[in-house]
Amino acid sequence: MDSCIFCKIVRGEIPANKVFENDRIVAFRDLNPVAPTHILIIPREHIASVSAATADHEATLGALLLAARTIAAEQGLEANGYRLVINTGNDAGQTVFHIHVHLLAGRYLEWPPG
Amino acid sequence: MDSCIFCKIVRGEIPANKVFENDRIVAFRDLNPVAPTHILIIPREHIASVSAATADHEATLGALLLAARTIAAEQGLEANGYRLVINTGNDAGQTVFHIHVHLLAGRYLEWPPG
Repeated sequence: MDSCIFCKIVRGEIPANKVFENDRIVAFRDLNPVAPTHILIIPREHIASVSAATADHEATLGALLLAARTIAAEQGLEANGYRLVINTGNDAGQTVFHIHVHLLAGRYLEWPPG
Repeated sequence: MDSCIFCKIVRGEIPANKVFENDRIVAFRDLNPVAPTHILIIPREHIASVSAATADHEATLGALLLAARTIAAEQGLEANGYRLVINTGNDAGQTVFHIHVHLLAGRYLEWPPG
């Protein structure tokens, strides 16, 4: 996707503070953090949203959550915990239409989650 | 896991208001909803948390998110959107140590997510 800002980050065309990458996943710090640790985890492949995913994306979606686990371990977040959030559509406030997992940690996270 | 409440739901030993199930996933309504639609999506296999998942669980984790997509479509949630939340550990308020995805919809969901 030529115009997708997250595809541009994947291709290295715009800068991002990357904290993790492998063959399928890239993760970088959110520019507007809402917790002491706020990382976005995205697939290299452009998938617009959870609702746009197909059965063929099963492994990629699994890799997203495994990357979250690995990043949490690397960043020392396992002892106190962390929250993963994926927004789809207007009511959830999705603003970039390339699937991304928000990884939030470093403070107590209230309930309900928004 | 004999004592895990979500494993008991998977085995049908305690009742739940199920909305979806397939060979790997079960989903049911949360007993303490915080949105008009509040569904919990779990793997049949006992995995304590995202941090307890291994590379062998990649397909199961992907199936969790694909189930969320299918449930959202079946429940008519795609037009307005929905939020998926996975809590791990104390700061996130994880209370049942069997991975579960909260699917929240039916109202505007605030930011930050907790």
